[in-house]
Amino acid sequence: MKDKSSISPKTQFCALIGNPVGHSMSPAIHNAAFAATGQDFVYVACQVEDVAGALTGMRALGNFRGMSVTIPHKIEVMQHVDEISETDRAIGSINTVICDNGKLRGLGTDGPGALKALTDAGVDLTDKTVLMLGCGGASRAIAFTLANRSELAELVMLDIDKEFLQGLTSDLQQKTDKQISSAVMTESSIGAAMAKSDIIIQCTPVGMHPKENGTLVPAELFRAGQVVFDVVYNPLETRLLQEAKAAGCITISGVEMFINQAILQFEQFTGIDAPTEVMRNVVLKELGV
Amino acid sequence: MKDKSSISPKTQFCALIGNPVGHSMSPAIHNAAFAATGQDFVYVACQVEDVAGALTGMRALGNFRGMSVTIPHKIEVMQHVDEISETDRAIGSINTVICDNGKLRGLGTDGPGALKALTDAGVDLTDKTVLMLGCGGASRAIAFTLANRSELAELVMLDIDKEFLQGLTSDLQQKTDKQISSAVMTESSIGAAMAKSDIIIQCTPVGMHPKENGTLVPAELFRAGQVVFDVVYNPLETRLLQEAKAAGCITISGVEMFINQAILQFEQFTGIDAPTEVMRNVVLKELGV
Repeated sequence: MKDKSSISPKTQFCALIGNPVGHSMSPAIHNAAFAATGQDFVYVACQVEDVAGALTGMRALGNFRGMSVTIPHKIEVMQHVDEISETDRAIGSINTVICDNGKLRGLGTDGPGALKALTDAGVDLTDKTVLMLGCGGASRAIAFTLANRSELAELVMLDIDKEFLQGLTSDLQQKTDKQISSAVMTESSIGAAMAKSDIIIQCTPVGMHPKENGTLVPAELFRAGQVVFDVVYNPLETRLLQEAKAAGCITISGVEMFINQAILQFEQFTGIDAPTEVMRNVVLKELGV
Repeated sequence: MKDKSSISPKTQFCALIGNPVGHSMSPAIHNAAFAATGQDFVYVACQVEDVAGALTGMRALGNFRGMSVTIPHKIEVMQHVDEISETDRAIGSINTVICDNGKLRGLGTDGPGALKALTDAGVDLTDKTVLMLGCGGASRAIAFTLANRSELAELVMLDIDKEFLQGLTSDLQQKTDKQISSAVMTESSIGAAMAKSDIIIQCTPVGMHPKENGTLVPAELFRAGQVVFDVVYNPLETRLLQEAKAAGCITISGVEMFINQAILQFEQFTGIDAPTEVMRNVVLKELGV
């Protein structure tokens, strides 16, 4: 395991920018991964208010290779990079910036992290109907990624907020080639959507600590064989996942998406395969599991 | 010894800025010192062309605590800090920037590092005549520091370049309260200056690897008891120092100044006493001694 004394003039560094950053797991995850693979990198965390200034610094400071971007800067940071994919532009936020020879490339790994969580669990999206509960930032990232990078049949969008619902639905209809349907989230729309969906992705904070008793889906609506993915990772197994599992569903915890977004960032930083078990173990340890 | 995996969201970082930085010993020195004292800091090196951008980044990136500044940015960086001492302003260059709650404080540790090398060797400057050979950047830093922070009797300045000589001499005369004399460096002016000086400080590149045979002072001019300090540290003991030592002089290698400038930076970064032996050992190891 490399120690700090191994840092040389060639060592590259990465940083988290956000506000606050005091409870971030990212330094622990990425430094453990750098150490395990012998990559000559180090990762620090920076509380940032002046996003433009932070990006100016990234351009100016040689060896500043990569940035993780968290709340509240995931939208604003897009203005300060040189290159961004169509999908990420449609999503409207990014969580990663890579400096390639002075050129800043922005990208998101949340959506791809969710897709990887599904494929790692053996889920084939082809011709499937996918229900998205919630139309916030996580939902945008996942919906656009699945629509653009799989052969799913239909995305069903539900949210209690009409503006969020219509905004994301019409964006998806205009910027992807998939069938998109939507409804305001009610007991009855949830029931109808559950009945026709193969894969359910829960993208709201419902069920998160300390309100662990919350769930959007009545337990009797689950059918064996459905895939249920909850982006919440605290607790690791939400009430939604517990009830889905009891009904014979395949369940995926949000921790998989969280681990995967870090794995995909690591691969962007270093260009090598990530030490996935090392990174998973750091996350589980930090979560006190 | 802390390893990279111990880096947390609270870890502060420092960086060298310069161009080039590829052969700098600073990351090895400072990271070893952080590790030895358990200070939660890490130090990286950054090749920089855009000095203003690097300083903008320092202001924006929380946890960016300190900067070492090397060639060619030691003069320009002064424009971008908020606070600087009169002595450092007179010297006209700095090698350190500290970020205190968003406020950037610039300072030089080269002159104080030289003064500490003298006092550590037991040299009392009070009422002494000090000969400075050369009037470049190192000489400026040392001359102003000794003039402002000791009770020396007289500074004798010699240089082959009339403009450098007159520039530094008149700056010292205007901005310090010490007696300053100067002469163009010739065989005869060196002879006269050596005859009246107690302390000789060699601030030119003469004698540096690979021209190790060079020396400005004929060996027969040394007198037992004189103090001879050579800012060159490669080789550790220049021909000048060898001949001075043989004549019974007290000799001080430039490596002491180099170690001290890093020690004083460490103390600015962390606010604690530096682990001087650890830092010295890293320098000697990096120099292959």
